[in-house]
Amino acid sequence: MSSESNAHVSATLIVSCPDQKGLIASVTAFIRERNGNIVNLEQYVDPIENHFFMRVEWVLTHFEIGVKLFKKRFQEVIAGPFNMTWSLYTSEARPRMAIFVSQHAHCLYDLLSRYQAGEWQVAIPLIISNHPDLEPAAKNLGIDFHLIPITKDNKKEQEAKELALLKEYEIEFIVLARYMQILSDEFVRHYPFQIINIHHSFLPAFPGARPYHSAYERGVKIIGVTSHYVTAELDAGPIIEQDVVPVSHTDRVEDFIRKGRDLEKVVLSRAIWRHLNRKITVFKNKTILFS
Amino acid sequence: MSSESNAHVSATLIVSCPDQKGLIASVTAFIRERNGNIVNLEQYVDPIENHFFMRVEWVLTHFEIGVKLFKKRFQEVIAGPFNMTWSLYTSEARPRMAIFVSQHAHCLYDLLSRYQAGEWQVAIPLIISNHPDLEPAAKNLGIDFHLIPITKDNKKEQEAKELALLKEYEIEFIVLARYMQILSDEFVRHYPFQIINIHHSFLPAFPGARPYHSAYERGVKIIGVTSHYVTAELDAGPIIEQDVVPVSHTDRVEDFIRKGRDLEKVVLSRAIWRHLNRKITVFKNKTILFS
Amino acid sequence: MSSESNAHVSATLIVSCPDQKGLIASVTAFIRERNGNIVNLEQYVDPIENHFFMRVEWVLTHFEIGVKLFKKRFQEVIAGPFNMTWSLYTSEARPRMAIFVSQHAHCLYDLLSRYQAGEWQVAIPLIISNHPDLEPAAKNLGIDFHLIPITKDNKKEQEAKELALLKEYEIEFIVLARYMQILSDEFVRHYPFQIINIHHSFLPAFPGARPYHSAYERGVKIIGVTSHYVTAELDAGPIIEQDVVPVSHTDRVEDFIRKGRDLEKVVLSRAIWRHLNRKITVFKNKTILFS
Amino acid sequence: MSSESNAHVSATLIVSCPDQKGLIASVTAFIRERNGNIVNLEQYVDPIENHFFMRVEWVLTHFEIGVKLFKKRFQEVIAGPFNMTWSLYTSEARPRMAIFVSQHAHCLYDLLSRYQAGEWQVAIPLIISNHPDLEPAAKNLGIDFHLIPITKDNKKEQEAKELALLKEYEIEFIVLARYMQILSDEFVRHYPFQIINIHHSFLPAFPGARPYHSAYERGVKIIGVTSHYVTAELDAGPIIEQDVVPVSHTDRVEDFIRKGRDLEKVVLSRAIWRHLNRKITVFKNKTILFS
Repeated sequence: MSSESNAHVSATLIVSCPDQKGLIASVTAFIRERNGNIVNLEQYVDPIENHFFMRVEWVLTHFEIGVKLFKKRFQEVIAGPFNMTWSLYTSEARPRMAIFVSQHAHCLYDLLSRYQAGEWQVAIPLIISNHPDLEPAAKNLGIDFHLIPITKDNKKEQEAKELALLKEYEIEFIVLARYMQILSDEFVRHYPFQIINIHHSFLPAFPGARPYHSAYERGVKIIGVTSHYVTAELDAGPIIEQDVVPVSHTDRVEDFIRKGRDLEKVVLSRAIWRHLNRKITVFKNKTILFS
Repeated sequence: MSSESNAHVSATLIVSCPDQKGLIASVTAFIRERNGNIVNLEQYVDPIENHFFMRVEWVLTHFEIGVKLFKKRFQEVIAGPFNMTWSLYTSEARPRMAIFVSQHAHCLYDLLSRYQAGEWQVAIPLIISNHPDLEPAAKNLGIDFHLIPITKDNKKEQEAKELALLKEYEIEFIVLARYMQILSDEFVRHYPFQIINIHHSFLPAFPGARPYHSAYERGVKIIGVTSHYVTAELDAGPIIEQDVVPVSHTDRVEDFIRKGRDLEKVVLSRAIWRHLNRKITVFKNKTILFS
Repeated sequence: MSSESNAHVSATLIVSCPDQKGLIASVTAFIRERNGNIVNLEQYVDPIENHFFMRVEWVLTHFEIGVKLFKKRFQEVIAGPFNMTWSLYTSEARPRMAIFVSQHAHCLYDLLSRYQAGEWQVAIPLIISNHPDLEPAAKNLGIDFHLIPITKDNKKEQEAKELALLKEYEIEFIVLARYMQILSDEFVRHYPFQIINIHHSFLPAFPGARPYHSAYERGVKIIGVTSHYVTAELDAGPIIEQDVVPVSHTDRVEDFIRKGRDLEKVVLSRAIWRHLNRKITVFKNKTILFS
Repeated sequence: MSSESNAHVSATLIVSCPDQKGLIASVTAFIRERNGNIVNLEQYVDPIENHFFMRVEWVLTHFEIGVKLFKKRFQEVIAGPFNMTWSLYTSEARPRMAIFVSQHAHCLYDLLSRYQAGEWQVAIPLIISNHPDLEPAAKNLGIDFHLIPITKDNKKEQEAKELALLKEYEIEFIVLARYMQILSDEFVRHYPFQIINIHHSFLPAFPGARPYHSAYERGVKIIGVTSHYVTAELDAGPIIEQDVVPVSHTDRVEDFIRKGRDLEKVVLSRAIWRHLNRKITVFKNKTILFS
């Protein structure tokens, strides 16, 4: 029973720490003693790293302490002693997302369709592009559109402008909807595991530019796409979702692109949905996906 | 090499008839003798019905006779003697499509996004709905939107109005983008194999209303959607495309709906693409899909 | 970290009961207080039925009480008060499985290949068939093969013989590897959720006989298979696993059978693997699959 | 209607040549004039290379010339003038296949199960291995098993032995059923596009050794396998079939291996089926797969 299924406000706690005895018992007792009704708990222990991960969700209706106090006490009583990394969210949050786009329309149109239809609990106040082409789509929905063209020479200062905008709009995470620019390491460092990219290949096959052309050249029988968090290394960040579609020798590169386009839309959206619903955590460049 | 891959105008001929010797040789010789360069040929013989199907595409650049004369001669020399059913299309055509919709936005938004992005060679001059909700989406793109509410009592006269509109707008085929009304047999008879529906189940499982709820009830581990031509019998017309997505016990009906929505968009669009590219023919309530 | 990943003997507890506060905290505290190191915990609350399910696995190395005493105390302290249904397994168990088969060889051969290769922790002392054809395959591996032909007239007494054999061989669960007989309600009642069947369709589409023929007739574009627990109602028991494969108009019934055969083998085996690894529980005719 | 569907002996002709006008018309007329009833024709033109490929199958019942004479005449009248590469097969053929294997049993067991069940029209007189482990499986079915261990030092002479055996047993094509040795270029040159390998990754991702471990390391969400013809370059030959299966963060390397094993069996077998049914041709390191 997740927060969406009812009117009750819920809290979601995501924790990780070195595995040790009593973790689950301690956390669940802490919540229970404050009259929290756990509606969802998922844990995972990485068998190689011996590291513990848990996502717990409970209804706040009769919970006896506020979020602020919870944070203080939880740190003192549980997180501190167990050496936990943790974060807390409530179901009322409406994260603020920016979209970066270039000239390919399909992912942007798809995101905006979902936004307009109210599929997600999200705010999209800002779209940034290095091309003017897709401005009308943004304007239609009353979303601010900023044109920030990037060249080899102006990258540093343009990224500074982008960071300023992101700050001004209080953006929490960024979606690269087929944005055809590589972000600098420094830019990425501002949004650790808060930048979601869609790469149009089944990574790690065909990283970099023109993957559909490379896939055609190689004669593969299946093509795929990959949504992942952006890190300093190109197309090598933690993978969130992947999906594939069969191709045949009768498909030309144009057909790869047409078939891939539909995958890109869907797989990018699945990643955003997971991110919004706090169903991902990252450890050692891999994602743990809560169900 | 299909017509899309180059600037050359091409012709596509689709024929079917009882199987007999010499069909391929006769048709290909007929085209060759008039200097047509065949760029694509696909044939299929139904092994039970012993019926022959073929799709031939050739470049018209140096073709020695016009379409009109071709039709006349082909009927006399080939189609008549072999007792063929056949149709001819040229790659210049831009078929006129109407969309019927109710209140679900996702399929309509997706179709209009593709229209706007120029993904298909199609004209969409008309949207008909039994609800006013989605009118703004139509207006945005300058597409005429007609509100035709249907009740038990007015169905006959409202369908007459729809047919009149379809005639007025010179519509060639209709897409039901989650249109929540059942078309009468008489209506369907006006557009044989020219009405494409998307049904949100893996037919023949869960025909009729609320298939996601039924799938949830049954506890299936995979859900699917089906695009098909509409015939007199509900959800029983020739299947064009199907696709599936895994579900688990943790997915609630809302999750089935969310996951299914993405499938519906994609599978409906695949069916329309095939229809537009003359890659379907129908025989005995089954489709033959050319590649 | 499941029991397979290391040499440590582990215990797996599966519980279910009406949802209520403190369930997870109570169970995990109970195990922790006896020095059990939980290596895996998965819980699920059915949002409609408000029913709670949990699977907990812990290492027995330093566990302070034996299995017998655990069962007694757990019932007194936890299961009784919370009104739980529960079962306990240890990783040393080697469940005894019988295979029922008719004339189709592929599923049986596949099961025996896995058995021979040591893929599973299982004992297969008994194969029962209504046809003599596959006896050599059993003999090769030293498995007892009993021929028990079934007719309309002798079903009751032949099933009695089968039940006697199952008892004699101390069989815990039964796999129907394309067994072409319908088991009586009475027979099924002896092995509740302990009989696994593979049905060669994507249930609930095409239940009963000759599903590939029906799928061909209908002109579907995807075929599937379903593994499920056998209940009194034919092909309507809780679904364990499903999978699908695309088909096209060029596939004849023989091709459906060929493609489906490979699916049947794989999907049946996945279900058996889950059953053996205690990763399934059943509630209201649906399975909850632990990961 | 392919040769399998009836008792009639059929011929299959596969041709390729630079694309030019009149190819289909000429070949089909040639067959028709000799009273051949074409039951299947599939053609494809590579749009980049402008190269033509065709597979034609016709019933030999009333065909007016024998295979030998056909070959002579076809070369003179059609293949010569059009500069065709071509080959002819009849449905009576029972190709002779050798299996190379190391210690992994699952692919071998699966192949032998199919052989025993009569799924394929093939003869398997020879199994070669660099380990003695799987000899019993061969012996069971009366297939000759030759142990040829390979070390760095003896590779050349051992491959010479293998080639001698292949010649002695009149082997037409070779299946590497998880054979853990790399064949030398010289060896491969003896069997151009007649050696089928199964690689346990979704090529071109993770070529070479231990792909499941690499996939686990990378944190992919889907794993795949690839069957391909062996060429001089490791894991870079023409791809025949690929398939995939989802994995999650809860899957350890052992689970990747378990899930992948089932894929390997099925995907290798699909490739062999295609090869046996003359439904593959190769051009510029890609396969054209006839349906």
